Amino acid sequence: MGKSETRAIQPTREENYSEWYQQVIKAADLAEASPVRGCMVIKPWGYEVWENIRHVLDGMFKAEGVKNAYFPLFIPMEFLQKEAEHVEGFATECAVVTHHRLEKSDGKLVPAGELAEPLIVRPTSETIIGESFSRWVKSYRDLPVLINQWANVVRWEMRTRIFLRTSEFLWQEGHTVHASADEAMALAGRMLDLYETLARDYLAIPVIKGRKSESERFPGAVETMCIEAMMQDRKALQAGTSHFLGRNFAKASNILFQSERGRMELAWTTSWGVSTRLIGGLIMSHADDDGMVMPPKIAPAHVVLLPIFRKDSDRQPVMEYVENLAARLREKQYAGRRLGVEIDAKETGGARGWEWIKKGIPIRVEIGPKDMAKGAVFMGRRDTSHRDRKSVGTDLFVDTVTDILDDIQYKTYQKALEFREAHTVFIDARDGFYDFFTPSNPQQPEIHGGFALSHWCGSPECEKKIKDELSVTIRCIPYDRNLAGDGPGRCICCGKESPCRVVFAKAY
Amino acid sequence: MGKSETRAIQPTREENYSEWYQQVIKAADLAEASPVRGCMVIKPWGYEVWENIRHVLDGMFKAEGVKNAYFPLFIPMEFLQKEAEHVEGFATECAVVTHHRLEKSDGKLVPAGELAEPLIVRPTSETIIGESFSRWVKSYRDLPVLINQWANVVRWEMRTRIFLRTSEFLWQEGHTVHASADEAMALAGRMLDLYETLARDYLAIPVIKGRKSESERFPGAVETMCIEAMMQDRKALQAGTSHFLGRNFAKASNILFQSERGRMELAWTTSWGVSTRLIGGLIMSHADDDGMVMPPKIAPAHVVLLPIFRKDSDRQPVMEYVENLAARLREKQYAGRRLGVEIDAKETGGARGWEWIKKGIPIRVEIGPKDMAKGAVFMGRRDTSHRDRKSVGTDLFVDTVTDILDDIQYKTYQKALEFREAHTVFIDARDGFYDFFTPSNPQQPEIHGGFALSHWCGSPECEKKIKDELSVTIRCIPYDRNLAGDGPGRCICCGKESPCRVVFAKAY
Repeated sequence: MGKSETRAIQPTREENYSEWYQQVIKAADLAEASPVRGCMVIKPWGYEVWENIRHVLDGMFKAEGVKNAYFPLFIPMEFLQKEAEHVEGFATECAVVTHHRLEKSDGKLVPAGELAEPLIVRPTSETIIGESFSRWVKSYRDLPVLINQWANVVRWEMRTRIFLRTSEFLWQEGHTVHASADEAMALAGRMLDLYETLARDYLAIPVIKGRKSESERFPGAVETMCIEAMMQDRKALQAGTSHFLGRNFAKASNILFQSERGRMELAWTTSWGVSTRLIGGLIMSHADDDGMVMPPKIAPAHVVLLPIFRKDSDRQPVMEYVENLAARLREKQYAGRRLGVEIDAKETGGARGWEWIKKGIPIRVEIGPKDMAKGAVFMGRRDTSHRDRKSVGTDLFVDTVTDILDDIQYKTYQKALEFREAHTVFIDARDGFYDFFTPSNPQQPEIHGGFALSHWCGSPECEKKIKDELSVTIRCIPYDRNLAGDGPGRCICCGKESPCRVVFAKAY
Repeated sequence: MGKSETRAIQPTREENYSEWYQQVIKAADLAEASPVRGCMVIKPWGYEVWENIRHVLDGMFKAEGVKNAYFPLFIPMEFLQKEAEHVEGFATECAVVTHHRLEKSDGKLVPAGELAEPLIVRPTSETIIGESFSRWVKSYRDLPVLINQWANVVRWEMRTRIFLRTSEFLWQEGHTVHASADEAMALAGRMLDLYETLARDYLAIPVIKGRKSESERFPGAVETMCIEAMMQDRKALQAGTSHFLGRNFAKASNILFQSERGRMELAWTTSWGVSTRLIGGLIMSHADDDGMVMPPKIAPAHVVLLPIFRKDSDRQPVMEYVENLAARLREKQYAGRRLGVEIDAKETGGARGWEWIKKGIPIRVEIGPKDMAKGAVFMGRRDTSHRDRKSVGTDLFVDTVTDILDDIQYKTYQKALEFREAHTVFIDARDGFYDFFTPSNPQQPEIHGGFALSHWCGSPECEKKIKDELSVTIRCIPYDRNLAGDGPGRCICCGKESPCRVVFAKAY
């Protein structure tokens, strides 16, 4: 392969992290900007990652008894007003439909047919789903109601970044109704566990589970739980949230049920979601200066076969060998689906190999007349250097391919975990805290800090002061006692008593 | 079961067809109207049908080399203007986003943040996908591009009917780019064949394949091909379309490629789609006066087990027997997925059995202490009378359940085919044609007519005259020579020479 000295992505992470991110997306052909402000086009190689996430989660949801359904894209404007905090949270950034027709006026199209009441393109569906739930739920016998929706949502973002923050994105939103607060909280907790499983076991992203401080909660929620991951610039990414909504939305939507004792009671609801933002997290967790690195369990394809022809007469026998190998590999199952095998016979230069490195496919296999002659393939793994390739007997390769994938999956996770651990520190001194979050190298101001596990007194004032001065927020109050600490301490900001440590970080 | 004399759905098809349709949807719990004008809520039992359609089609598309991707929900207003016919076709009925914020004014929310250029919620994505294609395609080596999108679309319908015509619906839209007209036409034809396979082999709906007359074409298409099905009121339903777009959209979106000879050429494109409308077609093809009838290959679940407890002490042994049976059944595969088994232990009255009849589940199985004692189950099939049930040995039932499902699938298709054939007639006389499409029974004006295979001279004037006078349109010019006839004839309207017969019908 040609460019063995330079790296495939320019600039590198160290040189310009934000630009590196954009270039990885471009080089791996995952997505692109669209002519519509803040909206992206998800290209096939990126969309297949989403399909795999969807497949994994959907199976886990169904095993929990959750059913999929579909609710309207539009929400009457008045619905947003039903829940007081909810309207504040979403009214400032939404797409508003005001007309239902276009007319020609002086040869130009203009909106016509004004609606009596404007419609909002859903930023989230609590209110419109709540309206259905108010009709579906009559008695405790109807509970719990466990519904999920795979859909697109729109939040009018001013500063967008592909996958991480886009005006339109794809997500799943789960919505449930329960007869008791305990049952609702337990369900919301189980869903958070599923998100952790998805992140850890499929996306190879280590996450910290915890609950949000009041100021970081979902608008209208009583409790917001989340999983937080560390990106390679050491910033936090909120990778999934699960909300216990108490009776707030039941009250707003009038979701009442007759209890076993015959009384009419307000129900308890939850909601929970992950989005295409996870793909941004996947890139920032694993990609390197050679491009994307796909964890095998979520990769669009697992192996690419690259036939090599030295001369024209090689073509037929090599292609036969390659097609036969592909057929053998495709008979195998990996992570609940058929092994994905690509054949790229386009050309034989180094550019082709680099293309697949940049796309992050876990295993590259070159096969030329010499390999064929000795019954071998020439294999490279995406989790090791592109120079670190070796000849493997073809039968042995077929027999061990899923083990190799498991090994790549494991090492990809370990690498991300070690990175997070290297940049997670317990800090008890205020000066040390401020130093930690201040860039020391002016050449790379984007990469600094990490997760600070520090005490916090619980006051919104301290939280706000830190946010204003350092752009650092409380990512979560972690459930893990190894992180939260096993006793009280002193707030990093005001020095007053604090019950536990929390995760402070800059965040996406 | 209780109501053995009356039918479960009131009114019956004969009494009031339109109302019967609404009542079947309600009784089967497939979908409901929403507070947003013309938008529906697709409930779990209906959504699973869509998931199954999606699963079947997606597999067929991928086998053709089609890749999924995702494009923006919004389309800049100017894009619609690119293709002259396209703007005429869609500008009159679309949701227009004009603002991106809500503000409080006198305590009321009002739209704010007016957009410089309004955005249209996609009614179809030719123009926005074309913009991407114009960047993706550079050389003949990049072709063909075969892309599909699963998405929601919005067309502002004035008269809506759940599933059949809603302001928002779910669909897939395929979009392809080719180097030659022949290749594009061939691809569009293959996609139409896949739709026929879906309809015939999964939905159990017989369809007629053909091409549309000019006036019925998709706005901007050179050729629109379709599959047309007959509903039980003998009206036609267009169940899927595939368009050869010529170079019209390539020109509008500037999709150029360098040909093998080095010249820059305009590409040839296609688009093709089916939507949640198919679920409306499924209902109107198979449902009866007892509710929905699900063809097994697309049914959300295949078998419901209904335990019967005569006394409290029955509960444990019967439930164990039922759970064990469910586990054995769930090990089986049917139509490419695991056999779907529901257990409904809610109550033991007749209402429970009727609930599942109304939902259209293919097989109902009752199991009480007596059945258990003789190692049998009491089975009813949805395609026969609800009274026509019989005792079957449990092992035999397990061994033959997929054969029974195949038989139900086959008979469901045959019944629909016989219905269509009974109401498809060759008509050569103008008077007979007018009589055919005139309701004869004032008690049931909705049910009359059918498919008339009659000659048409090809003139838009004759087509329009028939449409104006009878509300009858040309559904398609059929490919099947048995329908089109094997020689010229005389136009049913003007008597001039006609090359072939076409399918005339009233339509949804």
